[in-house]
This record gives sequence, structure tokens and C-alpha cells, in this order.
Amino acid sequence: MAIELDGRPLARALRRRHRDELEDIQNRLGHPLTLAVVRAGEDKASTSYFRQIRNLCQRVDMEFQEHTLPATDREQFIGRICRLNADPRVAGIMLGWPLPEDWGAEFIASLLDPRKDVDGLHPLNAGRLFLGGEYLETGTFVPNTPAAVIHLLRHYEIMLSGKHTVLIGRSNVVGRPLAALLIAHDATVTVCHSRTAELASHTRQADILVAAMGKANFVTPDMVKPGAVVVDVGINVTPDGLAGDVQYDAVSKIASAITPVPGGVGPVTNAMLIENTIRAARIQSTLA
Amino acid sequence: MAIELDGRPLARALRRRHRDELEDIQNRLGHPLTLAVVRAGEDKASTSYFRQIRNLCQRVDMEFQEHTLPATDREQFIGRICRLNADPRVAGIMLGWPLPEDWGAEFIASLLDPRKDVDGLHPLNAGRLFLGGEYLETGTFVPNTPAAVIHLLRHYEIMLSGKHTVLIGRSNVVGRPLAALLIAHDATVTVCHSRTAELASHTRQADILVAAMGKANFVTPDMVKPGAVVVDVGINVTPDGLAGDVQYDAVSKIASAITPVPGGVGPVTNAMLIENTIRAARIQSTLA
Repeated sequence: MAIELDGRPLARALRRRHRDELEDIQNRLGHPLTLAVVRAGEDKASTSYFRQIRNLCQRVDMEFQEHTLPATDREQFIGRICRLNADPRVAGIMLGWPLPEDWGAEFIASLLDPRKDVDGLHPLNAGRLFLGGEYLETGTFVPNTPAAVIHLLRHYEIMLSGKHTVLIGRSNVVGRPLAALLIAHDATVTVCHSRTAELASHTRQADILVAAMGKANFVTPDMVKPGAVVVDVGINVTPDGLAGDVQYDAVSKIASAITPVPGGVGPVTNAMLIENTIRAARIQSTLA
Repeated sequence: MAIELDGRPLARALRRRHRDELEDIQNRLGHPLTLAVVRAGEDKASTSYFRQIRNLCQRVDMEFQEHTLPATDREQFIGRICRLNADPRVAGIMLGWPLPEDWGAEFIASLLDPRKDVDGLHPLNAGRLFLGGEYLETGTFVPNTPAAVIHLLRHYEIMLSGKHTVLIGRSNVVGRPLAALLIAHDATVTVCHSRTAELASHTRQADILVAAMGKANFVTPDMVKPGAVVVDVGINVTPDGLAGDVQYDAVSKIASAITPVPGGVGPVTNAMLIENTIRAARIQSTLA
């Protein structure tokens, strides 16, 4: 049976550290720090996600601001981002997804002040991550999910160097940035996606398999090499409750280690958001 | 025997088009366009590369400026970049490599005006490439070698979608950006490098194999799947003359198609630099 890569104790430890760091920073600045989220319309998934973030902010003693604007008014939305960019109390800004299709999501993301872009969506931050090296050391914002995957694997002392890591999924928030991080950590990386031919022939070779395509219970045991480490990034709502992208029970019989859903990557992902917001505050002020 | 993916006819066709485009743009602007290269010290390899670029610029009727500055004066170097950034006649700026180690190559690259960064080294351009989608369509500068690889493969009508492409090399000028482009073109991509275990077990699976590690004659026939397309990005100086990263004669017996060195990717790479400089001129001026 596989070891369970439980993200909750790691997330708790991070939360304690973040609370201490935030207390110290807010004392020095003399004002509270705020994480602001901005969305267009009331999407159900983002409502639930924002509730989680709000709770987390309370627990580490950081202000949380939710800006829900009409999905019909792009100008107002852009204006709000500019105002939050200029507000010194707002350390980090997050966009709620999805944005209306005809708004140009990438254009909107590139309006964020790169120093407040705690989701790592601005192309300047994506480029620093992608180029690695000096940039990665001196400061970019890594998107929270891939940062959490690396953090969790390192916490459980799973070596990355020289390992063959296969990713299923090439999104801009998980697959692509995770590939860049894994390459920077000396892993051999294969990126698979919806157009990949004979997917299982790739996944069966993985020392470390990361499922991030958002399809409930998609990864079956025959797609996994015995002894592999399996990381499940999926969070899918099904009639039976939350499900990952991996058939946990069946796959955990042959994997050497596996992340549960919920309780694996998710809690660490949220902690990474707080970590990025703290870093953002430090970048923005010499006092923080 | 493999088809030879000759880059020279494609480069010639591009050169004709570029000459016509440049004539038209320079007429409309009322002044010539300049490609400027800046280097610190007289490195032999960059001297030979700059000579190639100077010849190419002459053939398409574009001005070429070479700035060779002392490798001992970082401030002067930075000042020169700023001056070239501000000069409206300079459409594109290229850095000569290597820069002195303690200068912070990544810091220097990030000083380039992203709209003149014809090598695609600025993190903003790297991020747009990496994120793909809208950014890739509306304007980034793709580094010349990976742009040339894609251009050459498409010219010879080699499909990328769903193909397993294996890259050897993860540099910021070839491996990483090429991986991003191939993912955007729906290929399944594996990135191998110096830390990869059992390299041949990966390369033997490639439908398309790209060698970009800079080791003369490194790829032997036993590393190649029969019928694979082999792209050789290496240009190595050996006692016997220029050599690619692939053993051309032996590998061409089993590959279905292969690029020669010289005459494969190289000529197209140089053409991509001119293409980027023309795009840069268009981005900088509504007249161009």
C-alpha cells in the first residue's frame, strides 16, 4: 500500500509560520495587509473558493477583500484592478475565474501589478519562472498549485533530480508552470494533454505521475507503474462528492506514495497563496 | 535513406520576402532600420556569428551596428543598452554572449526594451511565449532557433499535433522555448538534459527528436527510432570542421527525415532574427 502524502500537517505548519510572519510585518508597517480578490459575476465555484481563502486569511490574521463586479462592465473591472494596484494596503490581488470570454483574460491578467500578482499569472512572472536560474531565485510569483506540488514532494523527501515525471494537463496555472519548475529541479519531464496519442504508454513510464486534467477518477491502475509516486491535482465535483483525477483506492494499491483528494495538494495550495502574499508585501515595502 | 530537411531554400525565400518588406517599411518611415548587437569583449564565436548577421543584414538591406564594449565596464554596457532602447532608428537589439559572469546576465537581458528584444530573452517575452494562447498570437518575440525549428518542420509538412517530441537540452534559448512552442502546437513533449537517467530509453521513443545539447556527434543510431524525424540544432567546432549533435551519416540511414549541419536549422535561424526585427519595427511604429 502507498504512503499517503497528507498535505494537512504541512499546511498547518505553514499557517503557524505565516501568522507569525504576518504579525511581525503588520507591526512594522503599522497597518494591516490585505489580499483582494476580484471577479466578474457570481460564479458558484469561485464563491466556494473565495470562502476558503477568506477563512484562511482570518486564521493567519490578514485582511480579505472580495470585489464582485458585474460581468457586463469590463471598464469598471479594469478600473478596479488599477485602484487595487495603487492601494498600498493591498499586498496581493487575485482574479476570480472564469472571466467573460470576450474580455481577453490574458489582457486582464497583464494589467495586474506584477509585484501584487500572487497567482503568478502576469506574463512577466510566468517568464521569470520559465527562464529559471537567477530569476527564480531573486523573485517571481509561482502559481500556487505547482508551488504546492513541489513543496509537498520535498516535504516528503521525494527526490526530483533525474526522475521521469509525467504530467497530464498543460494549463497555464498547473501543467506548464509545473513543467518549468520540475525542469529547474533537474527532473526529466513529459507533458501530456488532450491531444496525446496512447496516453497510458507515457504515464506507465512515470517515476512521478501528476494528474491535472480535471476529469474525475480518470487515472486507473493500469496507467501507473508499480512503485510510482502519484500526485493528484484534480478537484472534481461528482454526485458522490469531491473526487480527484485518480482512482485513489485502486491506484494506492500499486503506487509507492499518493496524494489524497481532498487533503493532499489542496491545503498546501492555499498556504502557497498566503506565502506569495507575504512575499508580495516584502517586495513592495522595505519595511515589510 | 532519410529526406534531408534542407533549410537553405526556405531561408532564401524568407530573405526575398524580408527584403521586400524592409524596402516598403523603410520607405514609409523615411529612414533606414537598424539591428544593433552589443557585446562585452571580443569573443571569437560571437565575432563569427556577428559577421554572419552583418552579411545577412546587407542582403536584405537593413543597417547593422556592432557595439563591442570593454568587458570591464558594466555601467557603460548598461548605458549603451539604454541609449539603443531610446533610439527610434534601432528596431532590434541583440546581446552578444557570453557576458562577464558577475554582471548578472539575466538582469542585463531584462534591461532590453521588450519591444526591441529580437532574441526573445526578456522575461516578459519569455512569459508570453510560455503562456501561449492569446499572447502568442498578439505578439511576443520567440527566440530564433526554436522559431526556426518549428518553421522548418512546418515547411516540410511534418505534423506536430499528437506527436511525441523528445528534446535533449533545456537552455533558455533553445530547449525551454521550443518545449513551450511544441506544447502550443499540440505535441506531446519530453524534455531531457544532463541529469536525465537512461537518455536513450527516452530518445528511442521519439517521433520527432531534437538534439540541442552542443556535443558533437552525440546522437548515435541506437538512440533513434527507425522512421523518426531528427532535428539537429548543434553547431560544434571540431578538428574535422563543423559538426552537429547528431551522427548524420549513420542516423540518416534509419531516420525518415533529418536536418544537415550546416544548412539545416542554422540558415532559418538567421532568417528568424530578421523576421523578429521587422516585427519589432512594426510594433514600435504605426507607420511601419
